[in-house]
Amino acid sequence: MYTGIGASAGIGIGSAVIVKEPSLAYDNKAVSDVDAEKKRLAEALDKCIAKTQAMADDMKERVGEKEAEILEGHVLLLMDPEMTGQMETSIADDKMCAEAAVEKICDYYMQMFSSIDDEMFQQRATDVCDIKTRLLKILLDVEDVDLANVPEGTVLVAEDLTPSMTAGINPKNVTGILTEVGGKTSHSAILARALEIPAVLSIPGITEKISNGDKVVLDGSEGQTYINPDEKLQAEYEQKRVAYLEEKAALAQFVGKETKTADGVKVELCANIGKPEDALKVVECDGEGIGLFRTEFLFMDRPQIPTEEEQFAAYKRVAETLEGKPVIIRTLDVGGDKEIPYLALEKEENPFLGFRAIRLCLKREDLYRPQLKALLRASAYGDIRIMVPMVTCLDELRAVKNMIAELKEELKAEGVAYDENIKVGIMIETPAASLMADVFAKEADFFSIGTNDLTGYTMAVDRGNAEVAYLYSAYNPAVLRSIERVIKAGRAEGIMVGMCGEAAADPLLAPLLISFGMNEFSVSATSILATRKGISLWTKEEADTVAAKAMSLTTEAEVEAYLKSVAKH
Amino acid sequence: MYTGIGASAGIGIGSAVIVKEPSLAYDNKAVSDVDAEKKRLAEALDKCIAKTQAMADDMKERVGEKEAEILEGHVLLLMDPEMTGQMETSIADDKMCAEAAVEKICDYYMQMFSSIDDEMFQQRATDVCDIKTRLLKILLDVEDVDLANVPEGTVLVAEDLTPSMTAGINPKNVTGILTEVGGKTSHSAILARALEIPAVLSIPGITEKISNGDKVVLDGSEGQTYINPDEKLQAEYEQKRVAYLEEKAALAQFVGKETKTADGVKVELCANIGKPEDALKVVECDGEGIGLFRTEFLFMDRPQIPTEEEQFAAYKRVAETLEGKPVIIRTLDVGGDKEIPYLALEKEENPFLGFRAIRLCLKREDLYRPQLKALLRASAYGDIRIMVPMVTCLDELRAVKNMIAELKEELKAEGVAYDENIKVGIMIETPAASLMADVFAKEADFFSIGTNDLTGYTMAVDRGNAEVAYLYSAYNPAVLRSIERVIKAGRAEGIMVGMCGEAAADPLLAPLLISFGMNEFSVSATSILATRKGISLWTKEEADTVAAKAMSLTTEAEVEAYLKSVAKH
Repeated sequence: MYTGIGASAGIGIGSAVIVKEPSLAYDNKAVSDVDAEKKRLAEALDKCIAKTQAMADDMKERVGEKEAEILEGHVLLLMDPEMTGQMETSIADDKMCAEAAVEKICDYYMQMFSSIDDEMFQQRATDVCDIKTRLLKILLDVEDVDLANVPEGTVLVAEDLTPSMTAGINPKNVTGILTEVGGKTSHSAILARALEIPAVLSIPGITEKISNGDKVVLDGSEGQTYINPDEKLQAEYEQKRVAYLEEKAALAQFVGKETKTADGVKVELCANIGKPEDALKVVECDGEGIGLFRTEFLFMDRPQIPTEEEQFAAYKRVAETLEGKPVIIRTLDVGGDKEIPYLALEKEENPFLGFRAIRLCLKREDLYRPQLKALLRASAYGDIRIMVPMVTCLDELRAVKNMIAELKEELKAEGVAYDENIKVGIMIETPAASLMADVFAKEADFFSIGTNDLTGYTMAVDRGNAEVAYLYSAYNPAVLRSIERVIKAGRAEGIMVGMCGEAAADPLLAPLLISFGMNEFSVSATSILATRKGISLWTKEEADTVAAKAMSLTTEAEVEAYLKSVAKH
Repeated sequence: MYTGIGASAGIGIGSAVIVKEPSLAYDNKAVSDVDAEKKRLAEALDKCIAKTQAMADDMKERVGEKEAEILEGHVLLLMDPEMTGQMETSIADDKMCAEAAVEKICDYYMQMFSSIDDEMFQQRATDVCDIKTRLLKILLDVEDVDLANVPEGTVLVAEDLTPSMTAGINPKNVTGILTEVGGKTSHSAILARALEIPAVLSIPGITEKISNGDKVVLDGSEGQTYINPDEKLQAEYEQKRVAYLEEKAALAQFVGKETKTADGVKVELCANIGKPEDALKVVECDGEGIGLFRTEFLFMDRPQIPTEEEQFAAYKRVAETLEGKPVIIRTLDVGGDKEIPYLALEKEENPFLGFRAIRLCLKREDLYRPQLKALLRASAYGDIRIMVPMVTCLDELRAVKNMIAELKEELKAEGVAYDENIKVGIMIETPAASLMADVFAKEADFFSIGTNDLTGYTMAVDRGNAEVAYLYSAYNPAVLRSIERVIKAGRAEGIMVGMCGEAAADPLLAPLLISFGMNEFSVSATSILATRKGISLWTKEEADTVAAKAMSLTTEAEVEAYLKSVAKH
């Protein structure tokens, strides 16, 4: 058994086909006819652009717009005059052949990008590598590996799957993918998921360990791979495969459906996102809105505070993608433990109990006003709602609302459109906010329970601390009581009460949340259908019975055991 | 105005008397008759021991046993054969005169002690310095500064007050003390408080700034000093002095009285201590028991876990000092932020949310069992009660109770005495414990609310962090709701509910705590009488009215303003 990163869920069973890149060796001698060589390069670039564009178009049609973006990025790179100019210079000045010029300049960019410790630049390095390979193949007239015609039941095994390779994959024939490199966010992973092919990535040396024709079983959910397994194991995984596909099919029935209990109590089912481009995924996964858009990404990995314009563009993009569905945007939630050099925050003894989130924002209006103004402006383009994180006292909510009122006046004076009735709600994630939920419910337009932090603060546990992580569980009766109070207090005042922590997607907790009256669940996009199904299994009455019993228990272990004993599938 | 450390409360008004140590210069030449010189040293040591012992006896009679201990420590030092032996060796081998030998060896010890960064050793260095001065005076036949006969209305001004000097002070004549060095726990401070003389310490260069006969006004509560103030200021301070003495006299009326509301609702009024020797102070201050004995001191500044025997001796001493009054001892409450090298705790990202207190103790039975066993053994000598800190779930309390049951069996088998009915209670200082108070009340023998940590965790604030300290207040409605729930839940089950955080001594909160039904207050020894008075000012009915109104308010500022508006004096 080999373990890697489970990058695309599902069970793959089939015969190995090892994908090896052809040799790209060339005769590296000085050229005499510089102009002819420049022409060779220019023609190769043109061909490569055309080919990549064709691949992108094909990808867009067969897989998806987002996946095609990778290849469209390659086209732009190939058209970059700086990079191609440097290749020409290498030919002209150093008498290099086109192949050597391509290799030298591409290697230079790869090295530059990969030296920056940032996922985006690492990806850029991979892009350049892919382009280099494609250009050399064209110059050397080497055929691409053709994955379109592998036999049915193939498990592809490669060092890495480049977009060039994957573009040709026919998902009918490929039942699994194994690679030596790549993580959950690599292109291979994205494409495997888009094509719904189970994949295990990052298994060192797997291309050496498997031979063509070997029987392979892989579990893309767990990240496990077996080579030539015995019949018993194979049968077991065959069963797992069927179960997985059945579950998937069962979930597919929930696409386009309302989210409601078995007896028709409707709730809203939204998704959490971290970047504007994730919004599309939410729509694709049939989310009914965005329950939590974390805005931290806008503020990180950059030299200064993002401008109001930059933020406006990001918020507007999400609002437009959601086409009028609700988009709850949480204002900046950072503190001394996040590396944002331009905020010059001091290192703190206990950053989780420190100067962060709304505490920081209220003292740093230079930081907060542009964000609020950008949110107001974007509210003209959809149903944007503002959510304030880490609130502990009414004064904080009132200060934010005052600031928003002032900014509305500014916008009115400037003649800029915004939603006059924009909703302002709060995260309930501190014990203080939970204790005062009835009071907050009179002044906040909605609640969203952040169970991750609420659990941590209630249990006085840093969940990142392995020594005490055993205490970090939403099944603790104390945490459940806090959640119950918040939901009931909010619903009693008639406001929406949602949950955007991990507990919202926990099927064991669904009957409790239904019984308490929660009316919005916000989960990861990939959990939407499973959560919709989970909610549909319960009637309100059944949920009430389970909740009454669960809330009478006094330890975390008892609660978990009980909820498991009554779980529905 | 000069500001120093207010080390002994009260207002002092009088004329300055500058206390200067006489010169202790001597002729430092080699001695020829070594035996004669050794005899001179031996005689001086004998005289010094006799004199110091006489001072100690006098101090014990006039001031107190604890204050005399300092001088008794000097006697022991003077009798230490190692130190005196080194002095003799210096005379014999280096032909030093006795004065030089005393100076050399004392300086050596002073340097050694003061190089250790620990208050106890710093104090030891001061002791050696005092001994050196006294010995040199005897050898040089220099008269001691005589403070017994200063005129009435004297403010003593000195670089430092040595025990030798202060031993002679007549508090009838001395109205104030000013020094250049010393802190709240220095001998000068301890003696000034014991003699009830207002004192401001640590005013740099004050002996140069004041001349003999200058009019001086000092405020030992605030740490302020005025030299030759104008009449207006002097009159103002004369008023303050009268008010202070009246308040003190008023409090004196509460000595020996029960602690009860105006309409006779009795509560228990105990004190918090950090060391066994503080127990005497509690008895002296008329405390009705110990509400919190912090045991951390036993575990700090030492190379390994204290033995069961050492702990037993400390707990027994406190139990015996309290003569049958309740003594609540909190088990070890440390974590990664405290420097206890032998525990080898890792540095944590958020130590307040980390591996500490009962979490640590339950995983480190080598640490916890000896403490529990020592507590059980000591329970045979008084009304010892065990208190578990930082409890978040029932499992923790149950685990402690199981361990105690096992240890009782061990003691029974060993034939060792203990209190079979020893009470085991918990600190309520986490939101989880507060939320589950009704459940805990069924299994804990008592509660003690630790408002300091409860406020911090509820508001998600590290009170040591200046940026967010503004949120740290027990007047927050969220914190008050938590306190109310805990008190009512505990009292509903008939168990004692106390409070050992700073809020217990806050007169503004007294009506709320009385109304909620709290029946034990644990405060610092010096706050006992003021707290008893504060409680006596309210009837239960008045307290209920104030509590109802206060609990209907929604912000910290409103609560504080309201409580101030109805405060009683």
